[in-house]
Amino acid sequence: MSNVEDALSELRNFVQEREWAQFHSPENLAKSIAIESGELLECFQWSGETGDAERVQSELADVLTYCLLLADRLGANPEELVLQKLQHTRTKYPVDKARGRSTKYDRL
Amino acid sequence: MSNVEDALSELRNFVQEREWAQFHSPENLAKSIAIESGELLECFQWSGETGDAERVQSELADVLTYCLLLADRLGANPEELVLQKLQHTRTKYPVDKARGRSTKYDRL
Amino acid sequence: MSNVEDALSELRNFVQEREWAQFHSPENLAKSIAIESGELLECFQWSGETGDAERVQSELADVLTYCLLLADRLGANPEELVLQKLQHTRTKYPVDKARGRSTKYDRL
Amino acid sequence: MSNVEDALSELRNFVQEREWAQFHSPENLAKSIAIESGELLECFQWSGETGDAERVQSELADVLTYCLLLADRLGANPEELVLQKLQHTRTKYPVDKARGRSTKYDRL
Repeated sequence: MSNVEDALSELRNFVQEREWAQFHSPENLAKSIAIESGELLECFQWSGETGDAERVQSELADVLTYCLLLADRLGANPEELVLQKLQHTRTKYPVDKARGRSTKYDRL
Repeated sequence: MSNVEDALSELRNFVQEREWAQFHSPENLAKSIAIESGELLECFQWSGETGDAERVQSELADVLTYCLLLADRLGANPEELVLQKLQHTRTKYPVDKARGRSTKYDRL
Repeated sequence: MSNVEDALSELRNFVQEREWAQFHSPENLAKSIAIESGELLECFQWSGETGDAERVQSELADVLTYCLLLADRLGANPEELVLQKLQHTRTKYPVDKARGRSTKYDRL
Repeated sequence: MSNVEDALSELRNFVQEREWAQFHSPENLAKSIAIESGELLECFQWSGETGDAERVQSELADVLTYCLLLADRLGANPEELVLQKLQHTRTKYPVDKARGRSTKYDRL
């Protein structure tokens, strides 16, 4: 069974072998995340259907890869980032106000 | 120590309490990833410097959160998506051709 | 000399010949703008230099095309949208406070 | 009646008064287009309906504004960019193959 630490270890090795750390500034990684998220969105450009599930997974993998590299560059643990933010989001969207509604918190 | 399975379990619970699964189609999650990646990029809009590291981490957390939710919706394991894609990327960027260069594979 | 009305007239004809208006919901056009803006950003993924000016112009043309189609779909005049928004932005960024600074209005 | 040259002239004046040209590198403008296109997409995050038409127009205005500034920075005429690209797209999507279909050109 794989976990994030394994994935990060492989990614670090992949980057080091190619001497690519020099290109991986936080800014360049943030641009890369935006670029890859556009490619993911392209899977749904003209229809909401998941036509090609394999392609969706492949594009999602690219977004995730750059997210892990950025977290690593910032010295942050990806799971902890998610869990910390979730604590904050819970308070912005209390269950009794947010249930069954997609309204943004500032209009709840 | 937290791991992705813990984060996903908390996220699933958060979504279920709010009855939000109805909004989380793959298409809507892909849009959400693109939207949040724009907010992450905004941290670097006018400068490549990481001015506000806390804000960068907070925006990255949002992108990661929607990535985990989309992987979960597709029945995929996030770490395995990353590792599978890495196998593919290794063959597109052989070490001897790609070392120290940011050139795209189709122009290597 | 060309103007926006000429460009829109050609675009409308292009779309009509191909019976593509059915795909051009505001939502799909907004997704398309985000997708193409990712391709534009890819020109600057690893460097701030404008390496390939022709490619930058070609990707910018794609973003602009979908912007014109969306304005048309909304019954709005693109130049007037820009000028109206500029009136608003002037008040958010008074010259004496904003001069020479890239700070966002809510922190000026 | 306004046209693009009027809008550009006002934009140039707005930028000059604030001494903002120093921030408007092609790269920063490309990032800005991606950021604003994310805000436009947010109008359709959870639904394909155009709920708030005024907000959609306001976000579209932001994308358009940065597109005009980038075209100007590159010394290009926005309408001509659109018309030149359209010539190219016509050949990629011949009417008889593309009619009524949203298929990408490389799979037509």
